[in-house]
Parts: sequence; C-alpha cells; structure tokens
Amino acid sequence: MDQLICSRCEAAYGLDEPRWRCDCGSVLDIEFKPSFDVVSTPFRKPTMWRYREAIPIRDDEHIVTFDEGFTSLLEVDFKGRSVLVKQDHVSPTGSFKDRGASVLVSKARELGISEVVEDSSGNAGSALAAYCARAGIGCTIFVPEAARPVKLAQIAAYGGRIKKIAGDRHAVDAAALEAAKAVYYASHCWNPFFLQGTKTFAYEICEQLGWQAPDTVILPAGNGTLLLGSYLGFKDLMRVGITSRIPRLVGVQAARCAPLYRMFTDNLTEIPETGPVDTVADGMAVTQPVRAGQILDAVKSTGGAFLAVEEDEILASQKLMHRKGLYIESTSAVVTAGVEKYLERTAGLETLVTVLTGHGLKTGTPERDTTP
Amino acid sequence: MDQLICSRCEAAYGLDEPRWRCDCGSVLDIEFKPSFDVVSTPFRKPTMWRYREAIPIRDDEHIVTFDEGFTSLLEVDFKGRSVLVKQDHVSPTGSFKDRGASVLVSKARELGISEVVEDSSGNAGSALAAYCARAGIGCTIFVPEAARPVKLAQIAAYGGRIKKIAGDRHAVDAAALEAAKAVYYASHCWNPFFLQGTKTFAYEICEQLGWQAPDTVILPAGNGTLLLGSYLGFKDLMRVGITSRIPRLVGVQAARCAPLYRMFTDNLTEIPETGPVDTVADGMAVTQPVRAGQILDAVKSTGGAFLAVEEDEILASQKLMHRKGLYIESTSAVVTAGVEKYLERTAGLETLVTVLTGHGLKTGTPERDTTP
Repeated sequence: MDQLICSRCEAAYGLDEPRWRCDCGSVLDIEFKPSFDVVSTPFRKPTMWRYREAIPIRDDEHIVTFDEGFTSLLEVDFKGRSVLVKQDHVSPTGSFKDRGASVLVSKARELGISEVVEDSSGNAGSALAAYCARAGIGCTIFVPEAARPVKLAQIAAYGGRIKKIAGDRHAVDAAALEAAKAVYYASHCWNPFFLQGTKTFAYEICEQLGWQAPDTVILPAGNGTLLLGSYLGFKDLMRVGITSRIPRLVGVQAARCAPLYRMFTDNLTEIPETGPVDTVADGMAVTQPVRAGQILDAVKSTGGAFLAVEEDEILASQKLMHRKGLYIESTSAVVTAGVEKYLERTAGLETLVTVLTGHGLKTGTPERDTTP
Repeated sequence: MDQLICSRCEAAYGLDEPRWRCDCGSVLDIEFKPSFDVVSTPFRKPTMWRYREAIPIRDDEHIVTFDEGFTSLLEVDFKGRSVLVKQDHVSPTGSFKDRGASVLVSKARELGISEVVEDSSGNAGSALAAYCARAGIGCTIFVPEAARPVKLAQIAAYGGRIKKIAGDRHAVDAAALEAAKAVYYASHCWNPFFLQGTKTFAYEICEQLGWQAPDTVILPAGNGTLLLGSYLGFKDLMRVGITSRIPRLVGVQAARCAPLYRMFTDNLTEIPETGPVDTVADGMAVTQPVRAGQILDAVKSTGGAFLAVEEDEILASQKLMHRKGLYIESTSAVVTAGVEKYLERTAGLETLVTVLTGHGLKTGTPERDTTP
C-alpha cells in the first residue's frame, strides 16, 4: 500500500496527509511501488517525467514541471581517465534541486496547498520558488544572512519571500521549523517527496547506459538529497529486475564541514559537533543533516565511502572544470575534487559517474558579489 | 557541391578554406545539402547533433559538444493565450549561442585552427570561450567596456582572453575585424558556420510538433543569428518534403536600437543611423547588423514582420516571466515583450512559438552588478 512510513518507529500515514515528519519526530519515507515501461520510455520527452509510473503523483494535471531532468551524461577527461558527468547544472533554475522541487510542488498542488515555507542556502530555495511560481503557490524561503546575493535575487525574482536569519544553517533550520508549525514545510531535507524527484537521477543514468547500472557514482553529501534519491532510484531498478546491482555510492564533503565523513571514518553513531563553518562550499555547509543515519546506511550498504576535500582542492578543481568549458559554482567543485581524489586512490577500469550540481553563474561576479 | 558562396557576388570558395567573408567584402553563405533520418532520429540523444546528417562537419571526431540543444518546448500561458516557449536559456553556457558555437568551433577544429578571435557583448563570447576550452583552441574576445561583469567573469573562467574596447558595439566590431586579419575570425555574425548551428532550433521545433511547422515564430533580431538560422532550418525541412511550409517569422527589437524594424517599417534599403544606444537589452544593442539585408529578406518572404518594444515593456515582460518561474535576462525579455505585443494585435488561433534566449543568472546581482 502507498503510504508515508516513519524511518524510526515505523508508524504509517496516508500519502495525502500534509505532514513532513512522524509524530515521534523522525523523518518519513514513502512506500510506493514504482513501475517502468522500458519499451515506451525512449519515445517520451527527455525530462525526468518520462518515468511517470515511478513517481507517486496521482493525477497528471497536478504535475508542475519546466521539463527538468534527463540531463546530459557527458564524457569528460580527468587527467587521462574517462568520467561520465551528469550536467545537472544545466537545469531550469541552475541546479539539480529542480528534480526534487518538481515532485514536491506537484504533491503540494495535489494536496491543495496554497502556501509553503522552506529553508535553504540558495539553490533549493530558488528551485522551490520557481516551481511555486508556476503552480501559483506562495512561498517563503528562510536563508542565512551570508547567502549569495545572486541567489537571493533569483528567489525574489520568482516572487519568493525571503527571510534572512542571523547565525549558521542550523539557526535557519530552526526558524523554518517554527514557521512550519503553521504552514506546509516544503523542506528538501525533511519532506520525502523531494527524494522522489532526485531518484530520477539514477533512472536516467541507467537508461543512458543502456539500462545498466554503473560501477561507482560520486555524489555531494550535504543534506544528501541527491545521494539518498540516487540510492532509492538504483534500488528501484534492481528490484524490478531492470538492472542487476546497485553502484558503489561515494559521498563527498568539504573537509571544513564534514560530519558524515567523520561519522563514517570514526564509526560514530551520533552526528559530531562542527565548529563555526567557513567554506567556499556554502551550499554544502550542513552541520546537522537530518537524514544522516540514512545517508550512512546507504553508502555502507553499497560498499561505498565518504571523502573529504580541502578548500584549496575545491578551488583548484573548480578552475580545472572551468578550463574544460564546464562552468560550475564552488559547491559543485567539492564533488569534482572528490572525483580527482578517488581517481588518485584507484587504478582499475570502472564505469564512473559524477555530477555537476550547480551552474557557475550562481556564483555571481567574484570581485563584487562577496558575502559579508 | 558543398561550398561557401558569396551572398552578393556569388563567388564560390571551398568549405575548407578558413575564410569568413568574400573577397568582395560581403557575407558568405554555405551551400550544403542536408539530409534527415526521421526514423532513427527519435532514438538519438536529445541534443542538436541528432540532426547529424544536416550539419556540414565532415568527421565525427571533430565535433565539439556539451550535448547542447533539443531544449524544452514548454507551454506557457500569456494572458490566457497558449504560447510554446523554447527554453534555450537552459543551455550549457546559459544562452542559445551554444548552438552556433558548437558547429563553429567544430569547424575550426576540422580546419586545424589553434587560435580564434570574436567580438561579443557577452553571450556569444561565453559560448565561444567554453567550446574553445573543450577543443583546446585559444580564444580572444573583444567586448564593450560596458559589458556585464558577470559575463566577463564567465568568459575569463573558461580561459578566454578579454579585450575591452571603448565605445559602442561598432567600435568593438572594428577592433575584432582588425585582429581578424591575422587570426581566424570566429564571428557569430560573419562566420556562416554559426548559422549551421542555430538552424537546429527550427529542426527541433518541427520534430517536437510531430514534424510539423508552427504557424508563427517570434524571435530576437539583434544580429539575427537565431532568426536567420531558423529560416535556414525551416527551409531545409520544407525542401526535403518533411514539412509543407515555412512559418511566419517575426523579429523583435528594442525600440531604442531598432534599425531592422525601421528598415522594415519605412521600407529603407540602407541601415539607418542609430544614435548612442542606451537600452537594458545590452545583448541586442546592434546598430549595424552585418546580415541586415538577409534578415529583412527572410522575414518578408515568410509574410512576417518586425516589432519594436519600449524599455518599460521589456522590464514589465521580464518581471511577468519571472513570476511564471522563468528566469531570463533583460535582453531575452525583448522577445517576450514582443510576444505580448503580437498577441494584442492578433485574435486568431495559431501555433505560436517563441524563445527564451538567455538565463536570468546572466544578469548578475542587480543592486551590485550595474554597468557604468
């Protein structure tokens, strides 16, 4: 039966309850049996909605879309090794967050919701504001004071209301949680419908490889929405018998904000404290990932790992990508720096996939668009 | 026979001559017989290179691509009327110029060229710099002093060398022309291979409509590269018998820089003088379009027209698009303002297609990223 189910106490709720966490306080997952039509899929539009039967939105008329997804899987040379790069930075709002926002806002429309709140360092907020604009849903985005002006300008252009909160991302989360007592919380971290969008990332990779899973996928691990979505997606395809395995998932964090990496490396069961965070990877400066346990379980179950990369490695990798003609924001370069580190440590032949998460235009103009 | 042919004196040159204009000084066109495979095309990757047999690059190994093109054709409501909007702002470098740059740089590679020059207010320069980076070709971009910092940052990131020139676009053109005496001129205006990329815009629209041509296409008319490319593309499909007509082409200009509109309206044969140009549509501030005669002929032969839109109409239309979740730069809003004007003047049912040309992130941060 299709339902929301608690990741801790296993309490179940109907899919049409407008709730984003369990009464016990834990995150919810979605129980839903996806189906696929590999015969007709190649004839469908090149968007993530080509996997319509695998996405838990009841009526087509509720779908809110800008034809996002089915992004290019581009072969890129990394120091003589071939890596397949999903160009999710070429998305309607400029980041992979469009995948999650499309399904989440579709569900909000299906539920008849007219107003939502969200918290974000920028990209999830931009995506949500854009899809809410198309759906005619009002939205308020809580952001850290240090959010990049170019991202705030984008949110405001879509008509999103911006609330700047002093302090770190944790303080922003807290403010949004308070607001979420009264208004639907369209959180990319908490709301399980977001992952029902990011999972299409895995479907697309497999279809683009001739319905085969790659060996390894290297992904960002901030709130882990792309990593968890990918895990769900690869699992779906294996369960229905289209693919025969789940790839190794490797999560990358900025060393200056690496709670998941530390949990993995030091075998911790609790999220460790991260001091004041100062990293160029502002989009991944997440000290308390709400789905930390799930992210660790996913990576471990695939035989994967976590990597942490230093600031100079991030900036060097960003420059390297730019000189290949791939313009990405600094947060996105955390992942490509992770790819470089992974390749240094491995020698074998394998099909390796990674992602460009956010467009370089999201950085604004370096000499002027500096955050305080 | 495949060849370069002069648009004025009909002199012919081989396709592999590295030249960008005729000895007589006029613009060159390409004579080339495109072919199409409508049976296998739907199975190919969703990029503009799915029309491989229609693009005059000899060897596949010379193709320089980021999997650009085959952009979404999204249905958007304009005050109760349905318009099909090609989302070319969702392109690798953030504008439709990627189409032309992909073919032009592929040809440069085919010719063994290692260094190019170009002049641009930003978007063509960004596109060229990105594709040159992927091809390992050096490039120098001449830009007006008032070019947006966010665009210059993008060109520089790709490794493009920037030369700022005082004065208007005409002065920038002149400086590039001087440099082009020594180095291959990869001009989006002069070089006919650029149009061999933008023509795929028309192919895609027809394929997306079930291999039918729409009634009307509303396009930007600055240097007219998308308009002329579309004209070529629609003509190709009709000539081989896939479609049965060429749509009405409507070109839009900003009223403050509208030489083509004035030529059309006042039936002029020469390009009129435009005084000092001050428009928010910096990407279309072209006072002397080098292919002006061809643009006028194309529009007239389709029964089309030119429209001019005022600054307040451009800004209002940009805001309207943003509030629909479509983030576009101000130059792109010239076209959507033209759509609004067109719809005010027409009542009939017709299939109307238009384009979003450049991403809103190209604007930078409004309050900081102001041009002098």
